[in-house]
Amino acid sequence: MTSISIIGAGNMGTAIAAIAAKGGASVQLLAQDAEKTRTAATQAGASVVAGVVGDALTGEIVVLALPYPAVAGVLAQYQGRLDGKILVDITNPLDFATFDSLVVPADGSAAQVIAEAVPGARVLKAFNTTFAATLATGGVNGVAPTTVLVAGDDTDAKNALIGLLVAGGVLALDAGALKRARELEALGFLQLTLAAAGATGWTGGFALVK
Amino acid sequence: MTSISIIGAGNMGTAIAAIAAKGGASVQLLAQDAEKTRTAATQAGASVVAGVVGDALTGEIVVLALPYPAVAGVLAQYQGRLDGKILVDITNPLDFATFDSLVVPADGSAAQVIAEAVPGARVLKAFNTTFAATLATGGVNGVAPTTVLVAGDDTDAKNALIGLLVAGGVLALDAGALKRARELEALGFLQLTLAAAGATGWTGGFALVK
Repeated sequence: MTSISIIGAGNMGTAIAAIAAKGGASVQLLAQDAEKTRTAATQAGASVVAGVVGDALTGEIVVLALPYPAVAGVLAQYQGRLDGKILVDITNPLDFATFDSLVVPADGSAAQVIAEAVPGARVLKAFNTTFAATLATGGVNGVAPTTVLVAGDDTDAKNALIGLLVAGGVLALDAGALKRARELEALGFLQLTLAAAGATGWTGGFALVK
Repeated sequence: MTSISIIGAGNMGTAIAAIAAKGGASVQLLAQDAEKTRTAATQAGASVVAGVVGDALTGEIVVLALPYPAVAGVLAQYQGRLDGKILVDITNPLDFATFDSLVVPADGSAAQVIAEAVPGARVLKAFNTTFAATLATGGVNGVAPTTVLVAGDDTDAKNALIGLLVAGGVLALDAGALKRARELEALGFLQLTLAAAGATGWTGGFALVK
């Protein structure tokens, strides 16, 4: 059985936990606030186990469902315990003060920064191009199905995540090497600016059409 | 009446000419091959005037419907004749040998390179996130309407192009400052890699859903 630990119990973490639970995985949901995490876990599925950040990770897949500024602290807390894991970065590393640039190197990505910080993990970029509502409903405002784009250098790791998402009822697609995280983060950034400007809603955004 | 000159009579240039003609603009279509350009102009609309690259530009809007490597030569040929024009860059500046990176600075864009080369022009980025077929049909594989994303620093210039496209029956949207061309080019690049991998078709791609 696939096992997954999701760190962060906000809208994104909870939506991912629900898909994974529906896909038949063993799901652990961790956040700072134990009470809030229990509520989110219950919402995500009866089998989802709640815990707090710092707990031992039961998942072979670990999702960092955190805002980018919170990632470094969590990686430090789990130092040495992420080796061999499939580590999934979902962040859109915007400068939230200006909403006008990313805070990662222009020729790189948050995912590549994380891969350098945790060289023993198999890092994937995923979920950053889908709003939480489109994950939760499986559709982009009823117009097209939601597609999760997954980039990474480890094919087995990508297939494990894609397989779990498809089992959970959400389309997922190999978007290439981890290097493509640069483009995925640009897409996520653009989509956020369009939503903030009202050009698209938080239940919409970019839908990938075959 | 809006006037537009389109340099390049491939699938993109022809599709843009057809939308502009439908929108009631005075349309000039220029390319290297006079015969091929006449055929493309006829296809785009009865009122579209064909010519060759080097002809005087009759349009207040000038679209560079060219592959990125061809842009510098055309800009040199029109040196001094683009000042004051609304100059539209549609390129996806991929390294076509590797299909794995862009050939423009990572923190910039082809549009910004063009803006620096022609400081007297009002440069816009547009059309690079839509495949020719989605422009020609106005739809992303029948699932959602096509939306042309337009970035630029000159609001009047953006409104002129957006107004013409909407008059021609295609949705168009202000995607922010010219700086956002970096993200538009990343999106165009990602979309091309997904199409080349068969993950989306050339009549599909990313549709913007409200």
